[in-house]
Parts: sequence; C-alpha cells; structure tokens
Amino acid sequence: MFQINENYLQLNQSYLFSTIARKVEAFSVAHPGAGVIRLGIGDVTLPISPAMTDAMHRAVDEMAVKETFRGYGPEQGYAFLREKIAETDFRQRGIHIEPGEIFVGDGSKSDTGNIGDILGDDNRIAITNPVYPVYLDTTIMRIGKADQMMLLSCSEKNGFLPEIPSQRADVVYLCYPNNPTGTVMTRAELKKWVDWALDHESLLLFDAAYEAFIQDESIPRSIYEIENAERCAIEFRSYSKNAGFTGVRCSYTVVPKALKTKTSSGEAVLLNDLWNRRQSTKFNGTAYIIQRAAEAVYSPQGQAEVAGMVSYYMQNAAIIREGLIEKGFTVFGGENAPYIWLKCPSGLGSWAFFDRLLAECHIVGTPGVGFGSEGEGYFRLTAFNSRENTEEAILRIREWIV
Amino acid sequence: MFQINENYLQLNQSYLFSTIARKVEAFSVAHPGAGVIRLGIGDVTLPISPAMTDAMHRAVDEMAVKETFRGYGPEQGYAFLREKIAETDFRQRGIHIEPGEIFVGDGSKSDTGNIGDILGDDNRIAITNPVYPVYLDTTIMRIGKADQMMLLSCSEKNGFLPEIPSQRADVVYLCYPNNPTGTVMTRAELKKWVDWALDHESLLLFDAAYEAFIQDESIPRSIYEIENAERCAIEFRSYSKNAGFTGVRCSYTVVPKALKTKTSSGEAVLLNDLWNRRQSTKFNGTAYIIQRAAEAVYSPQGQAEVAGMVSYYMQNAAIIREGLIEKGFTVFGGENAPYIWLKCPSGLGSWAFFDRLLAECHIVGTPGVGFGSEGEGYFRLTAFNSRENTEEAILRIREWIV
Repeated sequence: MFQINENYLQLNQSYLFSTIARKVEAFSVAHPGAGVIRLGIGDVTLPISPAMTDAMHRAVDEMAVKETFRGYGPEQGYAFLREKIAETDFRQRGIHIEPGEIFVGDGSKSDTGNIGDILGDDNRIAITNPVYPVYLDTTIMRIGKADQMMLLSCSEKNGFLPEIPSQRADVVYLCYPNNPTGTVMTRAELKKWVDWALDHESLLLFDAAYEAFIQDESIPRSIYEIENAERCAIEFRSYSKNAGFTGVRCSYTVVPKALKTKTSSGEAVLLNDLWNRRQSTKFNGTAYIIQRAAEAVYSPQGQAEVAGMVSYYMQNAAIIREGLIEKGFTVFGGENAPYIWLKCPSGLGSWAFFDRLLAECHIVGTPGVGFGSEGEGYFRLTAFNSRENTEEAILRIREWIV
Repeated sequence: MFQINENYLQLNQSYLFSTIARKVEAFSVAHPGAGVIRLGIGDVTLPISPAMTDAMHRAVDEMAVKETFRGYGPEQGYAFLREKIAETDFRQRGIHIEPGEIFVGDGSKSDTGNIGDILGDDNRIAITNPVYPVYLDTTIMRIGKADQMMLLSCSEKNGFLPEIPSQRADVVYLCYPNNPTGTVMTRAELKKWVDWALDHESLLLFDAAYEAFIQDESIPRSIYEIENAERCAIEFRSYSKNAGFTGVRCSYTVVPKALKTKTSSGEAVLLNDLWNRRQSTKFNGTAYIIQRAAEAVYSPQGQAEVAGMVSYYMQNAAIIREGLIEKGFTVFGGENAPYIWLKCPSGLGSWAFFDRLLAECHIVGTPGVGFGSEGEGYFRLTAFNSRENTEEAILRIREWIV
C-alpha cells in the first residue's frame, strides 16, 4: 500500500482565514445591509497601473505573432528582468547582487514554501511567534518533528523583535517589515542577527515582501545592506504588495553565490547551485507576459505608479493608526508597514475582539492569536482597503462604545 | 551548521539539454552558415492563437480597472476554469470528474515535481526506462534512496510498454502518449495497470500532457476512461503542447475524491485533501490573466484553433515519420504523439548519431540515452518546428549517406 507524507496530519486543520470567512459569511447573511468593511486579509485593492498593463498588452501581442512568440523561457527568469532587479533594487542602493543570484518566481508563498526542498531534515528551525503561517506549516510538512522547531517570542516586552536564540538554531525565518505586527528591524538589530548567523553557521531566510512600505530611510530594505549578509542569508521579494500583483503572481528570491555550507563529508556546496537545480527541475519559469509586467515596475513610469500606490496605502495606515490612538488603543506598526497591530482593549482575547468588532462595527480584522499563541490579545488591521472604506471604518470605531 | 538536502548530490550534474545546447553552440560557431534545424527540444513554435490572446487582452483590461480588478484568487484555480475543464475534458467524454477534483497549476513540470510532497518517504517508486527526467530527478531529490527506485524497461521487445512490476511498487509514473518514445497505451493495456494498482493498493501518477495528439479514437485520452481509475490514479494535464502555452504556463492536476489510502494508524486519508493543503500552503494560484487564456481554449473558437495547431504538428510528425521510413529507418511513435523515436542506423550509439546528424545534416535531435540506459541506440525527433524546416530537415536526411 502506498504511503502518504504523514507530517501533513500534524497540520492544524482549521485555517485562520477560512474560519474568518465562515464567520463573516454567517454575519453577512444574518445582516444583509450591514456594509461590512474588510480590513482583514492582506490583499490589495488598487488596480494594476498603466505601465504594467501596457507592458502586458505588448507582451500578449508579441505572443500572438510567430516572429516574436516565446515558448519555454529560462527557469530562473528572463535576463531582462533579472538585470533590472540587480540594478534597481540592489546596485542603486549600494548592494552588489548579480543577475545570476536572482531567481524569478510566481510568488513569495511558493518561494518561502519551497525553499525547504534544498535543506536537510535535521536542521533546527526557528520561527517567530506570532508568525506568517506559511513558514510554520511548510516546515511541519517537510520535517514534521516538533522538537526540531523553536518559537522565538515576539511580544510587547521585546518590541515584537525576537531575541537571539539561546539554543542551537540552524535556520531562522525573519520577516521585516513584519507580517503580522507591522514592526521593522533597525540596521543595528538586523546586524545582530547577521553576525550571530555567521558565528553559528546558521542560515537566515529573510522575507522582505513589504520592503516598499518602509518610510524611514534608516531602516534596511534588504538584508544585504548588512555587511557579509550574502554569506548567511536568502532574501525573498514580492511584487504582490508594492505593484498590486496578488493576482498577477510574480516574486523573486536572492540566493547569493557567497552563501555556502558543507556536506556531511566536508565538501563545500553553493546554495545558489542547489536552488538553481530545484527551480530548473520542479518549475518552468514565470509566464513571459508576467515577467514583462514586473520589468515595467522598474521603468520611470512604473516606479512613479508604485510609489503612488504605496503612498495611498500608507495614508490609509496613518488614518487607522491615528484613529485608533485617539480612541485610546495601544497600537504598533503602520508606520513602515501596511499592517497595524493593536492590543485588544479591556483585556479581550483576539477572537472575542474579532466577534465584537464584526457585530458592533461591521469591520473584519484578523485575530492576532491566529498567527501564534503570543498573538493572543492582539489584532491585525490592514491598510489595503479603499480610502473611503478606511475612513468609514475609523469613523465607526470612533463612535464605538468598546 | 545548517545542513542541505544531500539527496541533491546524487543528481546527475550534466543535464541532457544543456549538453546538447553546448554541442550545438560549438557547431554553430564553427559553421555560421550551416542553417541548423532544431528537432530536439519539445517546445512549440506556433504563436498563441487569437481566442487565447483576445482573452488575455480582456483580462489585462479588467485588471486595470478598480471595479473588475482581481487580487488573490483561489489557490486551486478559478471556478470558471475548473468547471470548463470538468465539462469539456471529462463529462463530454463520459467521465465524471467534478471541479473540486481539479487543481489548476502553472505547468506539469511543477505539478509532477511537487506531487511527491504529499507522499511518504518509504514508498517504492517505479519509473520507466527511458523516462522524462523530471520523474527521476524529483524522486531522487525527495527520497534519495536508489534501492527504493525501480526502473521498468521499455524496449523494442515490449513495444516500449513497461511490464507490470514483479516486485512491490507503491507508486508508478506513467506518461502516455509517451515522452520520449511517442508510443501510446491501448485501453486494454491501461486497464491492466489500473487493475494491478487497485489489487496492490498502488498509486498511478498518469502524465497525459500529450493527450491532444491522439488521432486514434480507440486510445484513451484520460486514465479515468478506465473503470475505477479514480480510486488509484492522479492525472496531470497541460496546455503547453495543445494550446502552445510553454511560455504562458498553465496546467491542471486531477486528484479524485475517491482516491484514498490509510495512514500507519489505519485512518483513511483523501489525497484530494492533502494536495489541496499542499497547494493552498505552498502556492498562490495561477495568474488570473493566464487562467482566462486557458478558459478560452474551451470556447468553440479556441477548440478550433487548438485542433488546427495539433493538426499542423501532426502533419509535421507524419512528414518526419514517412521520410525516415522511406530512408529505411526503423521508426516508432509520431502517429498519436508529437515525438518520433527512431532506431539509430548501423548500430550507432545515441550520441554518435547525434554528432553525425548535427555535423552532416545540421539537424539537432535528442539522444535516446539521455532519457535512460534503455534509450541507448535510439533517438528522439519532435514535430514542433515549422513545416518548412521540417520538410527541409527530411530533404537533408533523404540525401544523407548514413
């Protein structure tokens, strides 16, 4: 009889967002005219802007004609895009990353989920608590052993920044600007992690999906702004939130050629070679049309449009943040991230607050406990709704008797 | 120190197509005017046809406007596409597959590569010899143990159809119409496998990427045409070859809800649930624009255009097949598949034939031995070039003194 991967049986069956969807559905059916405002899921609402849609129309036209049709592309991504990324996201910020270190993918969920394919089963893996659930679930799927996983507490006490592990940790997932807490790491804080990883020959998996939202110029946008990080870190980047590509699907992963480890028999191995082999065997590249859209993000028009979208969402974030502070809430994030993390008032638990916010203000958010036990008593709101809805939501909260 | 997945070290480093590319590059540099014709790699050459490009233009326009913009879609694929697939590819052929059993993906390479994620490490895995290398490489990446792999010989003696394993085999990869041999399985032959799998509680991974090329109506296009196959088989389908989507990237995988196994503690598990969990955790859906293109394949115009493309390639296949037979070659495939598998003349080995065909006819093909040891002495040509190049290639071969 064939066997399944029984690690899957260890996964929590009730997925956070499906529970929310069920509760919202039930409420909406019972109160059809309630005008529910969704500040829950991290999906964008602004349409794809003209530089990117024009690029896609042109690419579709190319695909329609024999002379310019493109079949299989390079699994790692087209040179036109990898070169723009290396130049704009790195060289212009004083970081040396070459196109051969960049792998274009179809989304950070795929990339952060699949990266474990190239790692060994005996690593001790550290994730933060609270955490973006994909790091946890994909680690369970792969190694399944709870005793190899370590949770790094992120609470109000430590400013939602994990402390350096006191026990062995071979691989650490870090996400900054953080989902869900909206917090960021200063250069000094990030340097502490890089230095520790180099000292301990540990690997940092750095998810920078929200870097575009950083407003404070002193906050690093890439882990490679820290000296020697190219020897200990893989970085994940996405076009989902900056360019609104949640339905367009494009991302990239940086695996520097300086990032090496040793096999059990002592031979040096480049992680770039392993990821290249993984991607060229189990992936066939991101659609040509989509890669042309991502390339357009780097055009002067594309850059201006992306800046406009980020600014729109960050104004929403400011409206939420300031509204909540005026109302007397304790609030984190929302300054360099599209996420606002609030402390539930009156000692309410995350789900109790969810239920009251939905029932009394007709607003949907995400219970902090859904991201891990340390999120209990906290709640996430996102800046990804329209200005009108965001303002209306805050108006309702202001008038709310909590 | 963090560890890598050392199974990767067991992979053959020199990938077939990169070796070919290097040899062709060297020849082209030395003979710049040679007019090399590529009948090697299985990439399409006809452009994307109007039904599909029109659908993509419309979808891009939708994405450009707030009212019709789409962010994250369902990880399993949009209902509009899953319903069209269930109706056209299955119900109209008398097969009951429901939309919830269909998972839209970004390519069969991803799907056949990732399917192992949900399978246990102790399965004994059977693949054919010769074989599409992805099944072999992804199995090595995942389980790494050579003694758990079994090669099913496909040779001229058995008509390139594997025999039922005499030893335990928990999972069997089958690809029909076959890449590389171009052979097909009759209904009786396929039934033998389904019955065996049911008897032995084994899982069949059936890759039907080339089903559109089947001309003989008696040959099954889907494994689910065989009674009870929904209890033992997963099927992979692709838009790459029928609709020319090699650069557009869309595929689907069928995981029937009747497909169950037992955990080590005896509980029943649905593979549909496991794959659903895998896809919703490690994938974020295929781009909306691309799914609209796939939907257009099922429109009357799309169906006519796809039929036209398939017919064009199958006429190329006939030209190659008949040309080679007239020249006295022993030829297989090319009647219900876009691949022609020939026996190298004069006892030449696959690579020796490759070198002579390139040097003397300026034609690139794929050495059979690149697909496994049983491919030694054979050679694959594909129907995916233009009519002009295909005719020119056969003209050169006719005049060739082998």
